[in-house]
Amino acid sequence: MLRDDFQAVRQRSLHLAAPLSNEDCCAQSMPDASPIKWHLAHTTWFFETFILEARERDFRPFHSAFRVLFNSYYNGVGAKHPRAQRGLLTRPSLDEVKAYRADVDARMLRLLEAEGGDAALAALVTLGLQHEQQHQELMLTDVKHLLAQNPIAPGYDGEGMAPDSPPGPLAFIDFDGGLVEIGFDGRGFCFDNELPRHRSYVAPFALASRLVTNGEYAAFIEAGGYRDPALWLAEGWDRVASGELAAPLYWRRQEDNSWREFTLHGEVPLDPARPVTHLSLYEADAYARWCGARLPTEAEWEFAARLASIEAGRLHPEAAAGQGLTQMFGACWQWTSSSYAPYPGYAPAPGAIGEYNGKFMVNQYVLRGSSCATPGGHARASYRNFFPAYARWQFTGIRLAR
Amino acid sequence: MLRDDFQAVRQRSLHLAAPLSNEDCCAQSMPDASPIKWHLAHTTWFFETFILEARERDFRPFHSAFRVLFNSYYNGVGAKHPRAQRGLLTRPSLDEVKAYRADVDARMLRLLEAEGGDAALAALVTLGLQHEQQHQELMLTDVKHLLAQNPIAPGYDGEGMAPDSPPGPLAFIDFDGGLVEIGFDGRGFCFDNELPRHRSYVAPFALASRLVTNGEYAAFIEAGGYRDPALWLAEGWDRVASGELAAPLYWRRQEDNSWREFTLHGEVPLDPARPVTHLSLYEADAYARWCGARLPTEAEWEFAARLASIEAGRLHPEAAAGQGLTQMFGACWQWTSSSYAPYPGYAPAPGAIGEYNGKFMVNQYVLRGSSCATPGGHARASYRNFFPAYARWQFTGIRLAR
Amino acid sequence: MLRDDFQAVRQRSLHLAAPLSNEDCCAQSMPDASPIKWHLAHTTWFFETFILEARERDFRPFHSAFRVLFNSYYNGVGAKHPRAQRGLLTRPSLDEVKAYRADVDARMLRLLEAEGGDAALAALVTLGLQHEQQHQELMLTDVKHLLAQNPIAPGYDGEGMAPDSPPGPLAFIDFDGGLVEIGFDGRGFCFDNELPRHRSYVAPFALASRLVTNGEYAAFIEAGGYRDPALWLAEGWDRVASGELAAPLYWRRQEDNSWREFTLHGEVPLDPARPVTHLSLYEADAYARWCGARLPTEAEWEFAARLASIEAGRLHPEAAAGQGLTQMFGACWQWTSSSYAPYPGYAPAPGAIGEYNGKFMVNQYVLRGSSCATPGGHARASYRNFFPAYARWQFTGIRLAR
Amino acid sequence: MLRDDFQAVRQRSLHLAAPLSNEDCCAQSMPDASPIKWHLAHTTWFFETFILEARERDFRPFHSAFRVLFNSYYNGVGAKHPRAQRGLLTRPSLDEVKAYRADVDARMLRLLEAEGGDAALAALVTLGLQHEQQHQELMLTDVKHLLAQNPIAPGYDGEGMAPDSPPGPLAFIDFDGGLVEIGFDGRGFCFDNELPRHRSYVAPFALASRLVTNGEYAAFIEAGGYRDPALWLAEGWDRVASGELAAPLYWRRQEDNSWREFTLHGEVPLDPARPVTHLSLYEADAYARWCGARLPTEAEWEFAARLASIEAGRLHPEAAAGQGLTQMFGACWQWTSSSYAPYPGYAPAPGAIGEYNGKFMVNQYVLRGSSCATPGGHARASYRNFFPAYARWQFTGIRLAR
Repeated sequence: MLRDDFQAVRQRSLHLAAPLSNEDCCAQSMPDASPIKWHLAHTTWFFETFILEARERDFRPFHSAFRVLFNSYYNGVGAKHPRAQRGLLTRPSLDEVKAYRADVDARMLRLLEAEGGDAALAALVTLGLQHEQQHQELMLTDVKHLLAQNPIAPGYDGEGMAPDSPPGPLAFIDFDGGLVEIGFDGRGFCFDNELPRHRSYVAPFALASRLVTNGEYAAFIEAGGYRDPALWLAEGWDRVASGELAAPLYWRRQEDNSWREFTLHGEVPLDPARPVTHLSLYEADAYARWCGARLPTEAEWEFAARLASIEAGRLHPEAAAGQGLTQMFGACWQWTSSSYAPYPGYAPAPGAIGEYNGKFMVNQYVLRGSSCATPGGHARASYRNFFPAYARWQFTGIRLAR
Repeated sequence: MLRDDFQAVRQRSLHLAAPLSNEDCCAQSMPDASPIKWHLAHTTWFFETFILEARERDFRPFHSAFRVLFNSYYNGVGAKHPRAQRGLLTRPSLDEVKAYRADVDARMLRLLEAEGGDAALAALVTLGLQHEQQHQELMLTDVKHLLAQNPIAPGYDGEGMAPDSPPGPLAFIDFDGGLVEIGFDGRGFCFDNELPRHRSYVAPFALASRLVTNGEYAAFIEAGGYRDPALWLAEGWDRVASGELAAPLYWRRQEDNSWREFTLHGEVPLDPARPVTHLSLYEADAYARWCGARLPTEAEWEFAARLASIEAGRLHPEAAAGQGLTQMFGACWQWTSSSYAPYPGYAPAPGAIGEYNGKFMVNQYVLRGSSCATPGGHARASYRNFFPAYARWQFTGIRLAR
Repeated sequence: MLRDDFQAVRQRSLHLAAPLSNEDCCAQSMPDASPIKWHLAHTTWFFETFILEARERDFRPFHSAFRVLFNSYYNGVGAKHPRAQRGLLTRPSLDEVKAYRADVDARMLRLLEAEGGDAALAALVTLGLQHEQQHQELMLTDVKHLLAQNPIAPGYDGEGMAPDSPPGPLAFIDFDGGLVEIGFDGRGFCFDNELPRHRSYVAPFALASRLVTNGEYAAFIEAGGYRDPALWLAEGWDRVASGELAAPLYWRRQEDNSWREFTLHGEVPLDPARPVTHLSLYEADAYARWCGARLPTEAEWEFAARLASIEAGRLHPEAAAGQGLTQMFGACWQWTSSSYAPYPGYAPAPGAIGEYNGKFMVNQYVLRGSSCATPGGHARASYRNFFPAYARWQFTGIRLAR
Repeated sequence: MLRDDFQAVRQRSLHLAAPLSNEDCCAQSMPDASPIKWHLAHTTWFFETFILEARERDFRPFHSAFRVLFNSYYNGVGAKHPRAQRGLLTRPSLDEVKAYRADVDARMLRLLEAEGGDAALAALVTLGLQHEQQHQELMLTDVKHLLAQNPIAPGYDGEGMAPDSPPGPLAFIDFDGGLVEIGFDGRGFCFDNELPRHRSYVAPFALASRLVTNGEYAAFIEAGGYRDPALWLAEGWDRVASGELAAPLYWRRQEDNSWREFTLHGEVPLDPARPVTHLSLYEADAYARWCGARLPTEAEWEFAARLASIEAGRLHPEAAAGQGLTQMFGACWQWTSSSYAPYPGYAPAPGAIGEYNGKFMVNQYVLRGSSCATPGGHARASYRNFFPAYARWQFTGIRLAR
């Protein structure tokens, strides 16, 4: 079964790259984003470096340069190619990277056959697959950013996108809180940053029944939301004043003053029914302040999320549908007001693998839920995603709290 | 009595500037620091703008340009002189700024005489005085930074500084925690960011009996602490790799490999008994990790601090003395692992005065306690100081936790 | 015959791209360099925009976006895609750009058939072909820079490169100078910056018989040439002190202290016999000062060059061979001490085409001769190449003067 | 007599500083400009380092740190304080620097008494005085730049400035040119960059009878001069497009669309009769192109200047008066199209003193004449001033040529 999972996840990465040309897979549009080809190689490197290198008899790397070339940030592994120059790696070619994948896959499957019952191996393989699923989401958000730089505005998927049905009014749902348990509850897989499960006091609160829509956010803009410093964190206002922030990342004002939005389906008229997405924490926070609300803490969000059903999306968030607490998963990652910090008693794994999460626990903020780009089966209530407050190229959205 | 406080605090600012020349008072060594003259003017501007302008009959500003010139960051007040160019304001002269102070003081005293019983006025005046005390600490840390840029290494105070007596060994003191009350308890003054008092769950923890010393930190350096990426947050390691971080801010390696330290008393041999100071959060965190400990959360710190006595220091932190929990106040501000965030239910004051704290609650970290440069009477257990993780020019130090 | 030239030059650009993958043709390694695909498109854009658009009946652009996308720097034509983002244009694909070339070529050939006798048209077509030849040289130097960023060090041409025979000793050849005529003499094609031919007084001078070799330049390095500020222009020394300049651009120091050089044939041991290349003006000037010589002025160089034979090279400069004044053409462009300035009475052409040369006549320096990457038939004695003093990615070398 | 010159020049520097406060003398408004106090110290350092250190028996420096602190750019002398941090040197105080001046002056006078007949000494002292005169001009332009940053717009001189009488129309005066002698003719002092005198061929040309006025330049702005890329060098247009260049440095547009100009006499209404000043080479070149003229070469300027009378100015350029070739000296430095390059056969002096001129001969442009801030007696026809093309804080102006 792990073997089946392995093949399914590995196959899906190639499937995501299928609509793209070799050139699309090679370019890098900013240091924060990586080329598709690099994602395909790095997720393979993870298995080769952390599993095959340790366990394969007579280990010989597929290519002597790849250990450095496709190391993302593991100082414990050694040197790494500079992040901002990943787009210059026109060699190895995409075909060579696919050959690299095939070779490592075959060796991994042989290893799984031979040592399948080994729990430590199974845990590492599972980590590798979860890691690859995280990169699958990045493949979509990174290539979206790349295609958005092109004046021709090519879509990742040529199907187009029709307007969605308007959602019902936004309501606030009350929660009691109290001294609650936060963190992974022990069923299935989790990353180390969801541990240890621990007690936290949560005062009574209310959470919005759905995400903020494009239509609601457009009203904020028209009302002068980007012109009133009183609505903004000081750092956010600096970015507004410099012109960096003036609307969500992929909104494009037309000459008739209407908006269009660049999506993975290409550029389309802004759909007022769908959730607003590709916002910084600064914008989410300013919007919340404008309407007399605030962002939730991650403990509040997690407490409420136990009631929510986990759904998967596809390429762009859909409008809310149904009653009660909706869109907790499968539409947009939801900014919280919680900085990314270790849970009480948190300890990273020893060795290079311990660099996975812990060393990033400063100056980032937690996002909860999942997005339309998150692979099916990857989300859970205790999941902690994290990005800097200024980051906008993920499918981020706004869940209000009070 | 408010009148006496007013005169005492206002007088102390001038007293702090007394050892300095007009040139010392005008220069600005980095955008984060301000000239002494600017501090003297801005603290006066606070009273003129937020009190006299609103309450003085036939209000006429002392100088028509000062409203913009000495506005620090209050967008609600209007335009402001660019922060990085405060050192270019050779006019008004120091004498003119002193005349500005004398004029505003006289008008404030007249107002206090006339409307002394007004509680809202008293609250604003008290806020203005607490504000000025914060700037008094900055006057010392800013001028220290300025003098440190000078190859001649001039001291602020010519008295010199003798080595202190070695402190006892560092011990850990256990605390039970539990569901505790955090935030201002209602006696005396507090800033709005200490409110509202609220419940928080604190798991059992231990806190170091004193701050980490120079001698202990030097051992960390000699052991290769700045060469091992496994000890560092990723952002911190980037700053180590770029050469920005290699030792505490004012340590200077000598040709014989010994250390000297620049202090407000000039450059002296590093005293191993005194607490290490002028560190970033990255360094404090790396040191803690190196010795198997961690930094406290602000709730842990505040819970423990209720037992501690509040003392004031003078120009440089002294070595720990005595038993139990020492150096909570009066030596160095202590980095916590808590990001600066609003307490549950926090609401800033309406209007420009509400920009005092709230808009800075992102990408900064809380420091607790007080330092040798904090004015007497200004500290309390619930006080929340905050700076970016990279900031080193304050008297910051390390309190370990477990 | 113009028709034949047209087909030959156009064909050669595709021939230069043939050894490269689609990914190689798309990436951009720095703002100064452009992707191969962009060169292929821009040289086509030149014909479409400056000729077809003006002369074709019922002109319809091949693609409505290309006019902006492939405009390099002609403000007179209108908007242009940002130079630093040319590498993000994964669309149009290389195949689409080849289709663009084929379409424009067919239309151009029809036009030439119809209006072949028109002298103005012939002049514009010739300019377009000379323009394309300039880009052919850039295709090689730009892709060399790209491949050099790759730790795998892939060659453009897999043939390898054998050491060349040592040249004879460097001699100085005397020239009388006098009141001489400088500039294009009227036979064949020239760019407008070679006009008008004019008188200039040249004092007696001597020119080195060949270019400086790798072996000679290595001796300069070993003698501490990069450590002595007295040898350097102040700007150059700033770049040495910052670490930017430490050896020619593509030299790589090995652990045994020997040098290897990255070439279009891949990385090879440094050949002491071949000319040193890929140097800034600062380095050329420092080397000349070190050996008691100087760089020539462009008038001196041109005066001497009338005696020299024009040869073409291939992918890497070869060692000098023969007697007298050698390597004036076909090895390395030769830095002169002359800033790029208009000749007395120079006037650019009216309209956008006048932006070709004139607007760059500030803060650049003239290079004379031609390089191993210059297309055959493109060089002449009056040719003025120009680059900023810091530029190193062209095949630049050192001709000494006294 | 040298002794009298010494005392007069040295005295004049103090005289220039007299209207300024200690704070005015300490601040630095940009890396290109230096504090007045630094100028006073550095010009003294020149005599101490290049003369007293070599010739004084039992030489003891006035202060051990000054050799580094007040070294401008002489690598041959050793380390130097970073240029951009000169404004942080609040110590030594202005009084200490004056004491330094008095001490070195006394020692210099003793030396002159003892060794007055020594020609080498006399040459060095003369160089030191000419050097100090250059800094006297910088004292005025640097403090003008500093005061201009202050929103209060304080004048250096409180006298005010009345409108001047309109000059006559601009005429062009013809010159024959020919094979002429350029460079210092041997009478009096010159800097090494004016040597050797050499032959140069100058084609017939015409020079404007006076400088371009504010009124004429304002017409260029109103006609859209800063909006038409066809008028600009590419580098200049980049600076226009980025907003850096929109009018001469100290022009300030009023709400009623009129102009005011910041001068050393404070801010005044723009006087259309006076010459336009504080322009970059890019602006001078664009203006010339706009009116169908060009900038002169330095050889043309020098050839013409032999007929001109040398006058001195005072704090701001005056309107042209009189017939023939006017304003060659004493109003504004005049941008030429000549890059700053060595004359044929130029050789700098050996040792650190040789760094005076030669190492700056790249990427700068020659300005000819003198300005209202140039000390009397310092100007001559062969004088070569030089600045980067973007520099605007000197009194630069436009002399047209054809």
